[in-house]
Amino acid sequence: MKVSFEVSRVTPGKTGEIYPAACSTRTVLDHVTSKWGVLVLLALTEGTLRWGELRRVIEGISEKMLASTLRTLERDGFVARESFPEVPPRVEYRLTERGRQLSERLLPLMDWIADNADDIVAPSR
Amino acid sequence: MKVSFEVSRVTPGKTGEIYPAACSTRTVLDHVTSKWGVLVLLALTEGTLRWGELRRVIEGISEKMLASTLRTLERDGFVARESFPEVPPRVEYRLTERGRQLSERLLPLMDWIADNADDIVAPSR
Repeated sequence: MKVSFEVSRVTPGKTGEIYPAACSTRTVLDHVTSKWGVLVLLALTEGTLRWGELRRVIEGISEKMLASTLRTLERDGFVARESFPEVPPRVEYRLTERGRQLSERLLPLMDWIADNADDIVAPSR
Repeated sequence: MKVSFEVSRVTPGKTGEIYPAACSTRTVLDHVTSKWGVLVLLALTEGTLRWGELRRVIEGISEKMLASTLRTLERDGFVARESFPEVPPRVEYRLTERGRQLSERLLPLMDWIADNADDIVAPSR
């Protein structure tokens, strides 16, 4: 596994880095794990959503943050945007095949976090 | 799957939210997917590391960011810190059982990102 291989170089006495600061993995990681990126990807996991639906299901996200998050995910090819010539104009967002491959690997992580979050933050309550 | 169940409520016409803004899942998600949190967790996946080793393998992280990231991961019970009474003092960090459970679910995601990152960012180069 590529990461395992890279991580395996991260042992005492060795100088291997996990990812060079300038590598593309860091860039994509920042996009995918942005404060809102994960939530937008999860919201679209179950199907196509319109702008207003995304805003509603992702509580707390601002118009500006939703717009920039979607732009980044579109640029990376994870999300596809389709606008319909209606009045009022309808714009829908969905995961691309690449976005689906990503979300498939994101869900097990999110399942675990959702199942354990209460215990994890409990002490600091 | 808990997340799938929650996400399945995120469909057009429904009002379910993925995670309420104030829920513990959001808190832990922010900690785990912080700009540096993922890299620190990955660095510790293969074993115990000392402060200086963490700084070296996570290129670009500042003393201040490494300190605050480790504090957060320690508080959440993902990372254990052990200091030895030596001169100079030696401080080691390792994943706890909880941290290992998390990193096990983080690796498949990181493997995929590492394998696809070049293609993903290529167009914008």
